[in-house]
Amino acid sequence: MFGIDCGTEFTGWGVVEVDCGGRMDRLVHVAAGTIRLNKKEKTPVRLLQAYAELTGLMSLHEPEMVAIEEVFFSANAKSALKLGQVRGVAMLAAASCGLGVAEYAPLSIKSSVVGYGLAQKEQVQFMVTRLLELDQAPDSADAADALAVAICHIHTSQTQGAQGGCR
Amino acid sequence: MFGIDCGTEFTGWGVVEVDCGGRMDRLVHVAAGTIRLNKKEKTPVRLLQAYAELTGLMSLHEPEMVAIEEVFFSANAKSALKLGQVRGVAMLAAASCGLGVAEYAPLSIKSSVVGYGLAQKEQVQFMVTRLLELDQAPDSADAADALAVAICHIHTSQTQGAQGGCR
Repeated sequence: MFGIDCGTEFTGWGVVEVDCGGRMDRLVHVAAGTIRLNKKEKTPVRLLQAYAELTGLMSLHEPEMVAIEEVFFSANAKSALKLGQVRGVAMLAAASCGLGVAEYAPLSIKSSVVGYGLAQKEQVQFMVTRLLELDQAPDSADAADALAVAICHIHTSQTQGAQGGCR
Repeated sequence: MFGIDCGTEFTGWGVVEVDCGGRMDRLVHVAAGTIRLNKKEKTPVRLLQAYAELTGLMSLHEPEMVAIEEVFFSANAKSALKLGQVRGVAMLAAASCGLGVAEYAPLSIKSSVVGYGLAQKEQVQFMVTRLLELDQAPDSADAADALAVAICHIHTSQTQGAQGGCR
C-alpha cells in the first residue's frame, strides 16, 4: 500500500505492507520519505518533478494500490487550486502506473490510526511510529501522514475483507 | 502556440500560428477542439485521459509553447481543488513535452482578443472567429477560450518582441 500526503511544497509518501505470517497480521514499514518541490522552479517543472519521483517510487515498490487523503478546506480557493494541481499529478501518477486510488477523509485516517478523529499531528506521528514498530518517528510529519493514510486503507480493507489485508 | 482552457468536465484546446509571409503578420487557425472527460470514470482515470489527449495533441502539433488561463475565484475551495487537479495535469503535459507554460489572466485575454477586459463569452467567440478568419465559430466556448489564450500569448509576444511572433 502506497500512501501519499500531498502538499504544494512537501509531499509525503510511505509504503506499508501486511505480514500475514504470524498469529496476527502485522503492519510492516517498507519505506517512507518526503518529496521537496524546488520553490525556485516554475509550477510545471515542480509538477514534473513530483510526477517523476512518484512514478519512480511506485515502479520501485510495486504497491497494489495508492491511498490519498481527501481534502477539506477552511483555506481559500487559491490555496485549494495550488494543492489541487499537485493532487491531480499524484492521482495521474497512480493511474499511469495502472494503480487504483482510494481516498480517505482526514477524520477516517485519524480514527483509524489514533482511534480519535480530531487527533493532533504529533499523536498521528506517535501512533504511526508505534504501529509500524519504528525505532524513531518518520523523517517528517508529511511522511508520517502518508504512512497513516496507507495504514488507514489497510485497516479499512481488513474490516471490509477487501484487497490490502491477508486472506 | 497551444492554448488550453481547463475545466473539470470540458477542457478546450486550440493551436494558432503566425503567418509572416504577407505585409502584415496574420494569425492562422491550425486546429481546435474540446476534450470531454468521462463523468462516469473516477478522477484518476479522467486525469489520465486528459493527460494522454493533451500530450498526444502537443506531440502532433509541436507548438513552441503552451498558454493557459490563470484562474481567479469567486467559486468555492472544493471547485478550485477539482479544477486545480486538471490544471496540474495540463501543466505537467506541457512540461513532459519539454514546453514552457505562459499564464494569462482572463482580463488580459479578453483585452487582447476583444479589446475589453470584461467582455462576454459570446464576444470572445465572435472575435476569435473573426481574427482567425473562420467560416464558423469554434465547436465550443471552451475551444474558443483556448484559441483566445493562444492569440493573447501571440499578441503579448509581438508587443514584447519575444518568441511567438515574426522577426
